[in-house]
Amino acid sequence: MSKRDKTEMKRCYFDHVATNPLHPDVFDSMVPYLKEDFGNPLSIYELGVRARDAIEKSREQVASLINAKPREIIFTSSGAEANNFALRGIALAKQNEGKHVVVSRAEHHSIQNSARFLERNGFAVTFLPIDKYGIVDPERVRKSIIKETTIISIIHGSSEVGTIEPIKEIARIAKERGVIFHTDSVATTGNIPLNVKELGVDLLSLAAHQFYGPKGAGALYVREGLRIVPLIYGGIQEGGKRAGTENVPAIVGMGKAAELAKAELLCRMEHAKKLRDRVIEGLKGIENIYLTGHPVGRLPGHASFCVEYIEGEAMLLFLATKGIYAASGSACTSKALKASPVLLSMGIPAALAQGSIVLSLGIDNTEEDIEYFLEEFPQIVRRLREISPYARGWGDRKLEECIAKR
Amino acid sequence: MSKRDKTEMKRCYFDHVATNPLHPDVFDSMVPYLKEDFGNPLSIYELGVRARDAIEKSREQVASLINAKPREIIFTSSGAEANNFALRGIALAKQNEGKHVVVSRAEHHSIQNSARFLERNGFAVTFLPIDKYGIVDPERVRKSIIKETTIISIIHGSSEVGTIEPIKEIARIAKERGVIFHTDSVATTGNIPLNVKELGVDLLSLAAHQFYGPKGAGALYVREGLRIVPLIYGGIQEGGKRAGTENVPAIVGMGKAAELAKAELLCRMEHAKKLRDRVIEGLKGIENIYLTGHPVGRLPGHASFCVEYIEGEAMLLFLATKGIYAASGSACTSKALKASPVLLSMGIPAALAQGSIVLSLGIDNTEEDIEYFLEEFPQIVRRLREISPYARGWGDRKLEECIAKR
Repeated sequence: MSKRDKTEMKRCYFDHVATNPLHPDVFDSMVPYLKEDFGNPLSIYELGVRARDAIEKSREQVASLINAKPREIIFTSSGAEANNFALRGIALAKQNEGKHVVVSRAEHHSIQNSARFLERNGFAVTFLPIDKYGIVDPERVRKSIIKETTIISIIHGSSEVGTIEPIKEIARIAKERGVIFHTDSVATTGNIPLNVKELGVDLLSLAAHQFYGPKGAGALYVREGLRIVPLIYGGIQEGGKRAGTENVPAIVGMGKAAELAKAELLCRMEHAKKLRDRVIEGLKGIENIYLTGHPVGRLPGHASFCVEYIEGEAMLLFLATKGIYAASGSACTSKALKASPVLLSMGIPAALAQGSIVLSLGIDNTEEDIEYFLEEFPQIVRRLREISPYARGWGDRKLEECIAKR
Repeated sequence: MSKRDKTEMKRCYFDHVATNPLHPDVFDSMVPYLKEDFGNPLSIYELGVRARDAIEKSREQVASLINAKPREIIFTSSGAEANNFALRGIALAKQNEGKHVVVSRAEHHSIQNSARFLERNGFAVTFLPIDKYGIVDPERVRKSIIKETTIISIIHGSSEVGTIEPIKEIARIAKERGVIFHTDSVATTGNIPLNVKELGVDLLSLAAHQFYGPKGAGALYVREGLRIVPLIYGGIQEGGKRAGTENVPAIVGMGKAAELAKAELLCRMEHAKKLRDRVIEGLKGIENIYLTGHPVGRLPGHASFCVEYIEGEAMLLFLATKGIYAASGSACTSKALKASPVLLSMGIPAALAQGSIVLSLGIDNTEEDIEYFLEEFPQIVRRLREISPYARGWGDRKLEECIAKR
């Protein structure tokens, strides 16, 4: 078999921010609850008790991953649900104290669009700007707080540009001013060490499928004693805070995934970082390619770029023919074919933002995968630029020159 | 092995309204999406396309079960989420036309508590009474409609008392008056024939685990052209109406379960009805036991009773020692140990309502299971009455005498 035949059969999944494969141990942990242990956790007979016990075990595992107490974990169906629940649940719970919330331009759509929903329903919202690295300035957060502010929500790590926000500092400012603080840690939980007490956050969202757990399972950490209005009303599940028959298999899988993530965290980080740095180093040879997000303070497995004169989607399709799966902008809008609002908010011109590519690496990737990518990608860029009407006369401008002065 | 040994090993699951075992074919359909086909449906490469195609296939299967168009199906994480979404989503979408909603006392907690949420947030709510069979009078619905009424939500079939409501008639009245009509068909979909066009409903909620599909998958039918405000904001999933990375394995399982339910519906109904009628017939010999809900117009596999002088929970625990799993009141409150509000609304005295037992039968039950139950249950009732302080001096009163005049 020639080298070419071999590489054509290869599959490199570099889109771990979109979703992760299920860890085989997680799958195994779920199977009994998809088969014989199918009971409703609220039923009082043994079959229900077993399901209930499994949920409580998972709650302990998830709590342990972020140093929370089990009773501070509320299971949801996704990170998006947890984000909606957090922002709107606190805004409603505290609406008699004030109707102002603060979010940033770095937020995921589930926060930004929840904020817009509040805006349409009598709340005032401040959308904080971000700098060229995607960072929210804690001092701007401080200045945004008014008497009516009840909740601030800032993302922990961006799935689009990898930047990790100064959450600890922002949480401290919020606490000083008596404002509740939520962070969307969907992209960070299970990927970097995370301690809710040390961070000082009041609420934190996470999603199992971001750390090799199943889809359909998320959670919201709610600091003990904090009152929150439910998003989904109904029965007494989750202490009356989130109704609906529990998705037992997915919750069990989430617990197992949390346990594995905790045990393997440093090892996973080191692996991802090594691959990421190799990607960033390896692409330096390409002209007019810009790393987006913070060069150092970023997610371990996250390498994101804007490639001038090329459409992100074209790169993705060419890469896919080589068995390499990557993303452009946010997964939740990848089909919307619009330039990423986060990139635009960072001051990246719309044309350049169209050439966004995000490589997010995980435990299933190898150094060989990266070398294969580094061999194929420059050729793809060359071919696309050859056919690009925009590529004529491009020079050696720096990203700084491209970014509009803010 | 003696007869006693044999029966002690038996397990009879008579709690299909709480949840169902997963059909083996449904499990098989889910496995590929828990393993190799783990892609995010929004990703543009092949792995994403396969996940997206799987979701669209499921949408067709679910639509076909209720005679809807695929684009009229929005996937949710549960029946409770679908109910919240329907009632609150329409109330908000139409709040400029009026702020009055109508529900009944027969509704599941996810509707009643959603209605109370609206009530706390500036809406007026009419809670319609139910008669001694749990039925909502269509004429009362008509009279409850005022100029400001935007949505009426009446349950299709009660999981607590089995009664099937006159939905077609109520939908017609709503339509005549230009009011949107939603029905919670979580207990009926997949268990009785259901045709949204024939029923004339605008919205309808369903849950996969009620027809041998997985937990974590529900859906809301929204008639084409009807505007609804999302419950969960975020990305562009589900046409922008329900955000969050899709729970692909559960959605695929729901589709398969819908396909099986459609193919086997009449057969399943006949089986369930036969077992149910045998239970009702077989318990006639017990004194002071009252069938709750409508004697004829009820769910095929649903037999519910109030047993005088006994606590429901005591019956459940004694039955469980015999391997028989049943419910008392609603699954969502079974741990709350309160008399069912639905039973109380039917005029059943609180003491009698405490003695509620619900047997819900399914495809995994056999005639032998029922005979075993009919052998064990009267003995349990006898033993519990022997130790009950309330059981002294009970006579032969009829349920009608027990029900307070309304």
